[in-house]
Amino acid sequence: MKLRRSSRLVDMTHYLLEHPHQLVPLTFFAERYQSAKSSISEDLAIIKQTFEQQGIGTLKTISGAAGGVQYIPKISADEAKATVGYLREQLANPDRLLPGGYLYMTDILGDPRIVNKIGRLYASLFADRTIDVVMTIATKGIPLAYAVAHFLNVPVVIVRHDNKVTEGSMVSINYVSGSSRRIQTMVLAKRSLAEGTNVLIVDDFMKAGGTINGMISLLNEFNAQLAGIGVFVESEEPSERLVDEYISLVKLSSVNIKEKQITVKEGNYMNFIEQMKGDCK
Amino acid sequence: MKLRRSSRLVDMTHYLLEHPHQLVPLTFFAERYQSAKSSISEDLAIIKQTFEQQGIGTLKTISGAAGGVQYIPKISADEAKATVGYLREQLANPDRLLPGGYLYMTDILGDPRIVNKIGRLYASLFADRTIDVVMTIATKGIPLAYAVAHFLNVPVVIVRHDNKVTEGSMVSINYVSGSSRRIQTMVLAKRSLAEGTNVLIVDDFMKAGGTINGMISLLNEFNAQLAGIGVFVESEEPSERLVDEYISLVKLSSVNIKEKQITVKEGNYMNFIEQMKGDCK
Repeated sequence: MKLRRSSRLVDMTHYLLEHPHQLVPLTFFAERYQSAKSSISEDLAIIKQTFEQQGIGTLKTISGAAGGVQYIPKISADEAKATVGYLREQLANPDRLLPGGYLYMTDILGDPRIVNKIGRLYASLFADRTIDVVMTIATKGIPLAYAVAHFLNVPVVIVRHDNKVTEGSMVSINYVSGSSRRIQTMVLAKRSLAEGTNVLIVDDFMKAGGTINGMISLLNEFNAQLAGIGVFVESEEPSERLVDEYISLVKLSSVNIKEKQITVKEGNYMNFIEQMKGDCK
Repeated sequence: MKLRRSSRLVDMTHYLLEHPHQLVPLTFFAERYQSAKSSISEDLAIIKQTFEQQGIGTLKTISGAAGGVQYIPKISADEAKATVGYLREQLANPDRLLPGGYLYMTDILGDPRIVNKIGRLYASLFADRTIDVVMTIATKGIPLAYAVAHFLNVPVVIVRHDNKVTEGSMVSINYVSGSSRRIQTMVLAKRSLAEGTNVLIVDDFMKAGGTINGMISLLNEFNAQLAGIGVFVESEEPSERLVDEYISLVKLSSVNIKEKQITVKEGNYMNFIEQMKGDCK
């Protein structure tokens, strides 16, 4: 259907936002709107400029016969800082305190708006790494993993604690939970991860890192590679960690049950974003 | 920041798509772009026309002091038919057969692109109902629930089979699994559902409907109301169902393990979409 520029801009914006990290040939748009490639290029220049100016992301143009345009979601350092600040504030609310010093986070992880924002934060940071799959462990990390995966345009694989009959043969490993020192089991369907896959691990919470360490062992069983680790909340408490390189949004520094006080600091995410900013100069 | 019309169209499209079902006052856009309200109205008319023409959805304008514009995600009957057809084809692949006659669906539910499409299908159909929350049960329904919830702009609550210590006090009920006739338990955090909430239940699979029936009992415990039920795959097998009104995308009609043949029909979703089409005349 032939469309005017104004309508093309609206539809192309929608199309690109729905297909992050996917290479779209210019001919696709030219045919979709029955327009000359030169007009499409002009449209894309407007979209690129607006995306960059408004902190939505950028368009990467790849020239040549196999070329096209690719929308890369990005977040500005300012928006990242504001989001991390908002999350710190939310988590520090003393109403979250549960018996045993646990924090109620179900409402935060149940809000698709917040979850999508966290997804964009990680997808921005990991935009230039080769990632084929996002991995998480059931249950709380699942929405975060899907949000990151959506913005990176890759599938999700979910590790489980129990053996579900409906996934076929499974690979199972034992691991030691870092904080409780108990031996636990995690399983992953054999079919769900191919050899050589580059895997980004995403989870909602990390204490000593035993669970994430377990997922890394599982990657070895599948001959898959670790491409990165993102955790929403890390706990500052244990001095010794089983995992080295991870990126956290916020750090749970202390929970004082008596005084009903929760201290939440920035995670190391902001260091990496600031660093990226420096790289662009 | 003052923006030209072409850039405004790109940024407004992005903003509206990120905030489905949310009323945005025209003054918000007028201030954001330092533009007259009349220009903003013209922009919105272009976006509305394009959204409708391209099957993205529609814009609802509410006039008056408390008014504004609202993006309502919609899907055309043609796109719905194509998506349901694609899902039928995918599910009928004999490679999905697992021992016991189960179907491997992990790859489909692991693809954020497909999951988002299913989310848009349900959000379109339930667009005019009053829905405050999407409810699902761990684990496989979770991504679908978030996708629907995103497009409806409501939070997700997750019912569990196990009692997690990190969610505070829980309400627990026993229910009878319709197919296996075993007594099982499901729990939901007390804090996660307020009285009088209108709840859309979403799940990946329904056989006799015992699990969904359990979730309905749970709603009664919370004095919450059922606003609708959406299941991705229903099994045709049991002649007697515990649940009356539900909307399914596809229907697993028969699984022949010997012949390696899976028959997948359209669910009742398409009837409702066709009906809606009739209503618009």
